[in-house]
Amino acid sequence: MNEKIRHLREQMKRLNLEGMIVSNPISIRYLTNIQAEGTLLITRKENIFITYAMYMEDVNSTLTINDEVIVVDIKNISKDEFENFFLFCENVGFEEGYVTYAEYKKIYQRYKVNNLVETEGIVEKQRIIKDNIEIENIKKACEITDNCFSHLLTFIKKDMTEKQVANEIERYFKENEADGLAFETVVAFGENSSKPHWIPSDRKINSGEPILIDMGCKYNGYCSDMTRTIFLGCILEEYKPYYDAVLKNEILSLDQIKDGVVVKKATEIIDENLKRNNINLIHALGHGVGMEIHEAPIIHTNVESYFKENMVIAIEPAVYFPSNYGIRIEDTVVVTKNGCIPLTKSDKNYIVI
Amino acid sequence: MNEKIRHLREQMKRLNLEGMIVSNPISIRYLTNIQAEGTLLITRKENIFITYAMYMEDVNSTLTINDEVIVVDIKNISKDEFENFFLFCENVGFEEGYVTYAEYKKIYQRYKVNNLVETEGIVEKQRIIKDNIEIENIKKACEITDNCFSHLLTFIKKDMTEKQVANEIERYFKENEADGLAFETVVAFGENSSKPHWIPSDRKINSGEPILIDMGCKYNGYCSDMTRTIFLGCILEEYKPYYDAVLKNEILSLDQIKDGVVVKKATEIIDENLKRNNINLIHALGHGVGMEIHEAPIIHTNVESYFKENMVIAIEPAVYFPSNYGIRIEDTVVVTKNGCIPLTKSDKNYIVI
Repeated sequence: MNEKIRHLREQMKRLNLEGMIVSNPISIRYLTNIQAEGTLLITRKENIFITYAMYMEDVNSTLTINDEVIVVDIKNISKDEFENFFLFCENVGFEEGYVTYAEYKKIYQRYKVNNLVETEGIVEKQRIIKDNIEIENIKKACEITDNCFSHLLTFIKKDMTEKQVANEIERYFKENEADGLAFETVVAFGENSSKPHWIPSDRKINSGEPILIDMGCKYNGYCSDMTRTIFLGCILEEYKPYYDAVLKNEILSLDQIKDGVVVKKATEIIDENLKRNNINLIHALGHGVGMEIHEAPIIHTNVESYFKENMVIAIEPAVYFPSNYGIRIEDTVVVTKNGCIPLTKSDKNYIVI
Repeated sequence: MNEKIRHLREQMKRLNLEGMIVSNPISIRYLTNIQAEGTLLITRKENIFITYAMYMEDVNSTLTINDEVIVVDIKNISKDEFENFFLFCENVGFEEGYVTYAEYKKIYQRYKVNNLVETEGIVEKQRIIKDNIEIENIKKACEITDNCFSHLLTFIKKDMTEKQVANEIERYFKENEADGLAFETVVAFGENSSKPHWIPSDRKINSGEPILIDMGCKYNGYCSDMTRTIFLGCILEEYKPYYDAVLKNEILSLDQIKDGVVVKKATEIIDENLKRNNINLIHALGHGVGMEIHEAPIIHTNVESYFKENMVIAIEPAVYFPSNYGIRIEDTVVVTKNGCIPLTKSDKNYIVI
């Protein structure tokens, strides 16, 4: 059995689950590499992927013997067989955060299990700590993102629109081995940079304005996430103290965050530090990055859990002056025993193009 | 109150619902034009949109007085106020096909309603019949798609890859007023055209091969959907009888499908016709098109409902010879009393480029 399914089975044991119905395609891809539509059953003795005829060939070529997953065409499963999958199981888990209420009722009907039990993000929790292959995929996504950023420094010219820059980023990712975007790119010029989730518009860039770019791609299903705020022509003096404060605290975060530190504690240090510079962070300091661009853990002053080695997270301190400007600096990093190692490595000092 | 919310309230009355909690962002946009995160409550006397501080300004500028929707910042609602929204309601509906099991439990907890009742796609059913503004939006999306197709006829050249063509389609849409893609574009050369949902690859096009392009964009949130199968250099004689049969039946479908005809009946006629030409349709004949690329109704021989005026649907007969080639012809059309009017209007005869 592969390591990820074996680990899931151990966690299930701790929750007294004798079986589990895995429905979320991200969970299924994480556990098996399968990207086809279907349902993964973790039964007492077997791992079974139920899919459709049209996907059988593809699924079988994805799986290795080591996975120990049996693939079944849904139309060959009788009503009785569905009811027998979990025959001697008392508690069977399902993904209550993914399955709709209507699907929940269908599952109940179909498998006739004794207790259909909530699993409280069992797979999402497992995904928090990355293995070497996952980190390599994220590294590669970060490398493509860094290269794209270098390219943008010569690409962006006066009078270009936010949309033109965003389209170029997408083109670059697609033509450079990425699967595609990890999320909708933010390209914000001038006053638009004060809105954390700005959607690129037809606004043109003028000299002296900040250019906030928040971008990421996917590689083998894994995301990167990086933000840089650069300037066209020159940097106004008023921006500099805020830029310096954001940058200093981004670097300080990478130092504070390490295996064994409570999320709340590290985040409070940065928060207070920013406040001393008159910066009120209006969003979380960061978030986990993996198969999803936002995944556990949330890095916020209300989170009591610990940072652990091989978590991959994005750290993004920022300052926003509504209708005026914003500065955000963000890196994707991997947590170690001694601090964070950046996986996105683009220059973070003042960049004027 | 706007026409769409008024209509929803009438349908709710028929289901004995005194209130409804609308969670699906597509339902919310359909009913109010609001695109921000939040929940729409249809209470006895009011329509209330609960959202976050950061969206208040945007939401208020979207709504008109005619909508009669009150906008509230979630952090100003007390526990008691949540429980009072549906105070004298016996039955309150929720969207069981959208809300996850975990969210369902939160809703139950938060609003403390007597009976939280499934609404069986009440909004999705309402969306099946389009009003004039919706049809105009779809028309515009179809027009952009037709123009993109004309552009492709001069753009595609020998040795180009499927990915290059797909990227050009996306670029064209974005630079020509579309919101973006309605779905992941299918560009399939040669033997890849035999797979209905092919993902564009680095395969290059050779002379004499079919080029299957299934594409659509969004305009103001509404989709278009069109497929054409064209040829590079020449058409092999063996393709022609199948092309002719698919085309003939696509045109026949537009004639058979009209207000008052049972879906099953019209589809069976086409199905039998195709069988007489040795074509076994392995997917549905078509599907509704609107804010989603696949919405109700499914056009299949097992559907007993009726076609109605101002439904917008896509009709897509096809033939697939595994590992060899495929031919599909698809148009987005609007149903009238006398048949269907195509909204995508690109040439359907043999096209050799």
